[in-house]
Amino acid sequence: MNNTPTQIDERPWETLVDLAQQGDHHAVNQQVSECTASDQAYLIAHLDESEVESVVGALTPTAAAELISHLSETQAAGLLANLEADAAAAILRELPADEQADILADLSDHQSEAILGEFPASEAEQVRVLAAYDENVAGGLMTRDLLKLSVDSTIAEAIGRIGETLDELGDDDIRYGYVVDGDDRLVGVLPMQNLLFVKRSTRVADSMIANPKTVRDSASLDELIDLFDVHHFLGIPVTDEEGRLCGVVHRDRVNRAEGEVAESAYLKSQGIVGGEELRTMPVAVRSRRRLSWLSVNILLNIGAASVVALFQETLQSVIALAVFLPIISDMSGCSGNQAVAVSMRELSLGLIRPTEVLRVWLQEMSVGLVNGLALGLLVALAGYIYQGNVWLGGVVGIALFVNTIVAVSIGGTVPLIVKRFGFDPAIASGPLLTTITDMRGFFLVLGMASQIIERLN
Amino acid sequence: MNNTPTQIDERPWETLVDLAQQGDHHAVNQQVSECTASDQAYLIAHLDESEVESVVGALTPTAAAELISHLSETQAAGLLANLEADAAAAILRELPADEQADILADLSDHQSEAILGEFPASEAEQVRVLAAYDENVAGGLMTRDLLKLSVDSTIAEAIGRIGETLDELGDDDIRYGYVVDGDDRLVGVLPMQNLLFVKRSTRVADSMIANPKTVRDSASLDELIDLFDVHHFLGIPVTDEEGRLCGVVHRDRVNRAEGEVAESAYLKSQGIVGGEELRTMPVAVRSRRRLSWLSVNILLNIGAASVVALFQETLQSVIALAVFLPIISDMSGCSGNQAVAVSMRELSLGLIRPTEVLRVWLQEMSVGLVNGLALGLLVALAGYIYQGNVWLGGVVGIALFVNTIVAVSIGGTVPLIVKRFGFDPAIASGPLLTTITDMRGFFLVLGMASQIIERLN
Repeated sequence: MNNTPTQIDERPWETLVDLAQQGDHHAVNQQVSECTASDQAYLIAHLDESEVESVVGALTPTAAAELISHLSETQAAGLLANLEADAAAAILRELPADEQADILADLSDHQSEAILGEFPASEAEQVRVLAAYDENVAGGLMTRDLLKLSVDSTIAEAIGRIGETLDELGDDDIRYGYVVDGDDRLVGVLPMQNLLFVKRSTRVADSMIANPKTVRDSASLDELIDLFDVHHFLGIPVTDEEGRLCGVVHRDRVNRAEGEVAESAYLKSQGIVGGEELRTMPVAVRSRRRLSWLSVNILLNIGAASVVALFQETLQSVIALAVFLPIISDMSGCSGNQAVAVSMRELSLGLIRPTEVLRVWLQEMSVGLVNGLALGLLVALAGYIYQGNVWLGGVVGIALFVNTIVAVSIGGTVPLIVKRFGFDPAIASGPLLTTITDMRGFFLVLGMASQIIERLN
Repeated sequence: MNNTPTQIDERPWETLVDLAQQGDHHAVNQQVSECTASDQAYLIAHLDESEVESVVGALTPTAAAELISHLSETQAAGLLANLEADAAAAILRELPADEQADILADLSDHQSEAILGEFPASEAEQVRVLAAYDENVAGGLMTRDLLKLSVDSTIAEAIGRIGETLDELGDDDIRYGYVVDGDDRLVGVLPMQNLLFVKRSTRVADSMIANPKTVRDSASLDELIDLFDVHHFLGIPVTDEEGRLCGVVHRDRVNRAEGEVAESAYLKSQGIVGGEELRTMPVAVRSRRRLSWLSVNILLNIGAASVVALFQETLQSVIALAVFLPIISDMSGCSGNQAVAVSMRELSLGLIRPTEVLRVWLQEMSVGLVNGLALGLLVALAGYIYQGNVWLGGVVGIALFVNTIVAVSIGGTVPLIVKRFGFDPAIASGPLLTTITDMRGFFLVLGMASQIIERLN
């Protein structure tokens, strides 16, 4: 194969949109099929809504589905909503069932039912079953495309079924056969390789692995991650309350969901809330989402700054302090955010539990003492050099020393506490941290200064 | 199976350490084997170095290897360095070859060679081959545990080889057979299921998929992600310059490497640099790493604050401005960080390229105008209410309006520019952003105020 990534034109989307608008469907399909996955993602990120529509309209359902898989679910849903129900259905049917369910969940009930009306009844039923689950539980992550074998059949019959299923699955490999009894209850799993070593007249029941590892349809993502961590399986069968086989959840899908959760935590911690943002989205949506977080922050900020207003007289007589207020506010934020990041990571790896506030606090205190001392000395030196006043250096140095310890203590423990109260630590930790450390920092600098105001001039 | 996660004791590590120190190896093995993966990770995160050593010393090599797989590579290396070479080798041999190579890379050459000296020669050779590659290229991510078949053999012989290999691999499934010619050059791939439908006397050459998709040993992680995105394969064979089969890189491993890169970018963006931090690491290491980033930041901060010092007289006569300096600095940081996060994500998804600075800037400008207006009005209102002076409200409102636009412009484009110059945008973007927006913000507020100083009192 060719290992150099295909170098696409400088502005390849322009040609493509032109071709689509001229109705040259063949050329559009040709050009899209020659793109690598990342080129397709890049390309679609450079088109506006109407351009995406004309390109998708020119593509075969298979190619359109591949292109759409590079969009966010919300964008994909918006695009399908603008197509005729039959065209939308044809594209959607090319995607895996769990992605179908996620995209349909973003459409109105009316639109979703119109599209499902164009599905064969059995496929529509499948999607409805998946859509009934939360996105990140086993039921929402599983696929129902699987090889189901009857416990009463023979290996020869099983091999016949495998042949048929391989034709249906196309590109995919079959990993295991799932063996059920007359009531659709899972009784065993048959790894493909086992078929190589047994006579064709053997019963499936005699060559399967009985009582296989299964997972309930309601199992959480964390449970699934744990299971795949311990076991080397590529897929685990999912069963309902009565032990009936509902589907199979694959390792790939769990990995992907884990990545999405981590990605979303990063975005939320930086103030991108209410869903992912792509810059091709309308400005109104992007502004509104960002503002929803900024507006909370500005109120918290004004609250913290009111501490400065309380000490207006002190500041008036020692104006040099005003230079150090932003430094202490920023540096405490930096130290605290480091502690937040470590706690978020340890929480996500399961290395700490939300109850271990005391333990984390002690572990942060030790680092806070060392780092507070180093930073405090540095800023004290800056204060002394700036005004040649050792007391000024002392005030700002001690303030940063103490506030660094406060910042790491809060930064380390706030994610645990927020999580314990059932809120999302990725969103809430940052604003809580900076508000408290700002107030505390301003109070320290100005409070100490007001006590020794004569020495500072 | 039991779907409720095993509830381990409140402080299970204490019993475990006691048992290990009493030399009750059987009980230690028993207790560790009953833990889920996340319980093991939790447990080991609560032990100090010497406690980990005594527990690991009591475990069988297999159990020790599983426990060690929950440590960071640096920690695992530190632990093995304290064991006798033969004990370390016994544990290490239980891990996948690529993890062996990563852990050995963290040891001194002397230690690493001592441990490899205890390996069977062929295994040692394997590890040395993998260790020669970068961690995140195909050669560093591949495994050499694979089923190699000769193109001249028959299906019957292949099935014989599969039987032997299954015994060696234990828990793992065989996914494909890799078919090589007499010079070890890869000529085909044989999916296990193909073996079901052909006569046992058929030659492997006649039932394999010829000219399979391969990847060069030097292929980057991005190329691998791309390939697995397009193809449904579970593994892709890795070849060297001459087309000889080196190993196979599995989808799981690529997913895991992708997650590690994303995780490390998040930590770096929050100032955890120089490798991951776990709170069980020594305070000196944790402090030093955090300080390496904080000390750069404090210098940048002092630089930015020097703008305030330039306008000391203005501030002296309108002390109310001092209340608004931290608000403008913090809020610009918030707006800018949102833009950084969106750019980091679009870069990692390949939706933008480092050259598209102008495009990103325009897309951020529009959001910046809207959000700057909203935030500026809010802070102007706060300024007016605080002092009853409409000019004060005007100065701080305009300053935040302009600085929000500056912040999103810088936040959106800085990751692209930093990346283009070959630096790591995750580390550098935040500090660059806040320094520039702080300076600009202070300059705006105080500069405007100094022009209309009479109106402000």
